[in-house]
Amino acid sequence: MEFTVSQIAELLNGEIEGDGTKKVSRLDKIQDGAEGGISFLSNMKYEPYIYSTHSTAVIVSKDFSPAKPINTTLIKVKDPYSGFTQLLEAYAQFTKRAKTGVEEPSYMDSSSKIGEGGYRGAFSYIGKDCKIGNNVTIHPQTYIGDKVSIGDNCIIHAGVKIYNDTIIGNNCEFHPNVVIGADGFGFAPQEDKTYKNIPQLGNVLIEDNVSIGANSTIDCATMGSTIIKKGVKIDNLVQIAHNVIIGENTVIAAQAGISGSTEIGKSCIIAGQVGIIGHLKIADNTTIGAKTGISKSINKPGQTFFGYIGFEMKEFLKSYSIFKNLPSLQNKIKDLEKKQ
Amino acid sequence: MEFTVSQIAELLNGEIEGDGTKKVSRLDKIQDGAEGGISFLSNMKYEPYIYSTHSTAVIVSKDFSPAKPINTTLIKVKDPYSGFTQLLEAYAQFTKRAKTGVEEPSYMDSSSKIGEGGYRGAFSYIGKDCKIGNNVTIHPQTYIGDKVSIGDNCIIHAGVKIYNDTIIGNNCEFHPNVVIGADGFGFAPQEDKTYKNIPQLGNVLIEDNVSIGANSTIDCATMGSTIIKKGVKIDNLVQIAHNVIIGENTVIAAQAGISGSTEIGKSCIIAGQVGIIGHLKIADNTTIGAKTGISKSINKPGQTFFGYIGFEMKEFLKSYSIFKNLPSLQNKIKDLEKKQ
Amino acid sequence: MEFTVSQIAELLNGEIEGDGTKKVSRLDKIQDGAEGGISFLSNMKYEPYIYSTHSTAVIVSKDFSPAKPINTTLIKVKDPYSGFTQLLEAYAQFTKRAKTGVEEPSYMDSSSKIGEGGYRGAFSYIGKDCKIGNNVTIHPQTYIGDKVSIGDNCIIHAGVKIYNDTIIGNNCEFHPNVVIGADGFGFAPQEDKTYKNIPQLGNVLIEDNVSIGANSTIDCATMGSTIIKKGVKIDNLVQIAHNVIIGENTVIAAQAGISGSTEIGKSCIIAGQVGIIGHLKIADNTTIGAKTGISKSINKPGQTFFGYIGFEMKEFLKSYSIFKNLPSLQNKIKDLEKKQ
Repeated sequence: MEFTVSQIAELLNGEIEGDGTKKVSRLDKIQDGAEGGISFLSNMKYEPYIYSTHSTAVIVSKDFSPAKPINTTLIKVKDPYSGFTQLLEAYAQFTKRAKTGVEEPSYMDSSSKIGEGGYRGAFSYIGKDCKIGNNVTIHPQTYIGDKVSIGDNCIIHAGVKIYNDTIIGNNCEFHPNVVIGADGFGFAPQEDKTYKNIPQLGNVLIEDNVSIGANSTIDCATMGSTIIKKGVKIDNLVQIAHNVIIGENTVIAAQAGISGSTEIGKSCIIAGQVGIIGHLKIADNTTIGAKTGISKSINKPGQTFFGYIGFEMKEFLKSYSIFKNLPSLQNKIKDLEKKQ
Repeated sequence: MEFTVSQIAELLNGEIEGDGTKKVSRLDKIQDGAEGGISFLSNMKYEPYIYSTHSTAVIVSKDFSPAKPINTTLIKVKDPYSGFTQLLEAYAQFTKRAKTGVEEPSYMDSSSKIGEGGYRGAFSYIGKDCKIGNNVTIHPQTYIGDKVSIGDNCIIHAGVKIYNDTIIGNNCEFHPNVVIGADGFGFAPQEDKTYKNIPQLGNVLIEDNVSIGANSTIDCATMGSTIIKKGVKIDNLVQIAHNVIIGENTVIAAQAGISGSTEIGKSCIIAGQVGIIGHLKIADNTTIGAKTGISKSINKPGQTFFGYIGFEMKEFLKSYSIFKNLPSLQNKIKDLEKKQ
Repeated sequence: MEFTVSQIAELLNGEIEGDGTKKVSRLDKIQDGAEGGISFLSNMKYEPYIYSTHSTAVIVSKDFSPAKPINTTLIKVKDPYSGFTQLLEAYAQFTKRAKTGVEEPSYMDSSSKIGEGGYRGAFSYIGKDCKIGNNVTIHPQTYIGDKVSIGDNCIIHAGVKIYNDTIIGNNCEFHPNVVIGADGFGFAPQEDKTYKNIPQLGNVLIEDNVSIGANSTIDCATMGSTIIKKGVKIDNLVQIAHNVIIGENTVIAAQAGISGSTEIGKSCIIAGQVGIIGHLKIADNTTIGAKTGISKSINKPGQTFFGYIGFEMKEFLKSYSIFKNLPSLQNKIKDLEKKQ
């Protein structure tokens, strides 16, 4: 996309000094600025760059007056750093929501309803009796089953599959190929050693402001709901099993897995490749280090766990540092035995 | 879906006491029952709820006679619990197979043949020379390559990709975005440090009653077949490499990975995030605990392995409990050294 | 596919002895050869099989003259083994590129350009302002966003999603459901314990001859590029976070994860389920064993790391062997304490 400097000044509620009709289409660092880019000057130790930058425009403080001639257009705002951040966000949102309307061929059952202002990409599929809010961006090749409810302002990226009866709040973003609401892994062993499928009849409930990373999977509940509470952020390739509950504002990094019926508290931080077994409760504000295995409930909030079978992180690191020296410890014991 | 109470009574071979024309569309617990739901009463300690429940219908035993007035329709069957289970299964199957016929646009090469009674969703793709059985449910956005053979009664969920020459038995279910038959990971190192692709010319062979979870990957063999035997149940995000063989009725939990040419026996239980290196044999009835790494073949059936480099579980747990106390062990050695 | 023996002889620059009009459609081992197959004889200890094989044709050395009557057609070449390998590769390439032209329905924005000789499968999507080279095989249900650049001879399998601004070199292969260029996992904690999305404005840059396995994810950079250098081979279900750089000819096995901004050197071997934390540098020619966690930069090239928190592999294995015997070590200490 391309914007005029005036359009950006208007967005940032700033004043122009220079040529507002010039066009920019890129965000630059001031020291690397080139024609067609916009950068910012906040920390004054970068001031020298403004006299040499090739950026078409630079966001500066209201108070800034150049000490030498400049070759760029200034946009003067109250706080140039937060102005630039605002621009980053607007840019990202704009890019993600650049498309509107309906591309064909796409499929939507006539019983389903969708709000205004959104986008439905080619080869997207919406089943029966769905209710989808306003400004929902549905990328190509997404699947939305039957009786799915989706709030406003969600972004559903290409290849996402959302199964029947899923309920989704507002402002959620699901990255490509996420699977929501597939069957939980439940099989009853039979006498002949085969397994019989246990029907998975529940759904997934996702509250507002949830983000789920590419190729992650959130299984539906056996009965009731698998629940992802508001503000949860989940990275790529994460597994959330049936009937799990993830508390508000908890963050889960890539390739972690949470087994069935486990309940994670609020504001937890779960690092990459963590595994948590089923039917546990993890207290609020728990931090779990990368690759940790959790095999027991954590009742006291605010602790940090780490280790193959996780325990308090500092304790684990002490034990592990001795583990690294086990050969010398063994030698000491041999020496002691000899000296007896 | 909505059913009349009569329709359900017929399915369960039960007798109606009350209004059989009422409609139900949901399964409830008797204590939480609400209008439009059906629940069951098996354990008589729940009897009091039947006098207050708002469920539209309740499945009860043939022998049950209410001691007080009731506001619900009874369906009297021989065994209410197994009747309810039967209903759960029927409901799940019905939901999964609710759609029939062909949605457009979809793609099927004219050389491929498909049996009766199934469903092909919009944007599904079937290549050349495929043979697909009866009652196969092919959800939207699935890809079935060339010369793929699929038995009867399979369910292939949205986004599943099945590559050329794959052979699949009856009653299999593949959850969304599963990939079957992509190239194995085989590269020959060259003198200039680059790698040359080793052609992966084999296929995947999946027997009857296999279930594979969302976003799991089953690679084709280099030559010959990667084989998933009958009754195997695989969870989400599992990796099965080229030329692996998984024995009958083995269960593999989420995020586990089996490396190339390893052969797993029958009725094994492989927990989440397990990793097994290549070219091993794992005996029948082996249990492998979560996050375990297996680096050697397991020849004796029926053992339980656990640990970073797995060994017998109880032994591992003993060692690990001492590991947790290594700081005190180290102190003891220091004391002994001092006292010499 | 089916070829005449003459066509294969021409491909291999060989001479025919026997009936060149016969047809073959399969590669066999000489000892298992059957009608319609082609096999080879290189190691002369297999010579006896050539007199009994049912293969329709056998590739042999120029110098070979049968000592007894044979029932097969010979293709005489300089080196039968490399001839057979050449055939394997030709067969694999042929299979992968068997389809050409455009299947409908497919979607390509009119602003995008694509070279000659390729394939665009049904339900594939190409957004705005893309530049795609010659002989690019784009399987069904792939998504290519806006301003994506793809070189020549790439194979993009079914369900792959490539997001905006990704730049891809020549001869790359992306297996089914790979996701390239989805948002990195970046969230800024706010005072009210919620997280605010950090715009991910960078892209992914993939050089020539890169292979990425099914369901792997390569996130875009926050700013700048996530870079996969030439010759890198990545297996299934691998996570590459934002701003990671992977050096030339490095190999990464299934389910490994590389956290944000880490830079991996050239010709490294990273085994399955490895986890590497963010902002590290890993030296060239480093080998990292399966399931290893890497928490510090590795500066010296050519080392082998292993372990839960990885260190030099031999050292780890020594410590681990003592770990297995910790119960006996503990007993020795108890004995020493008693004997004081």
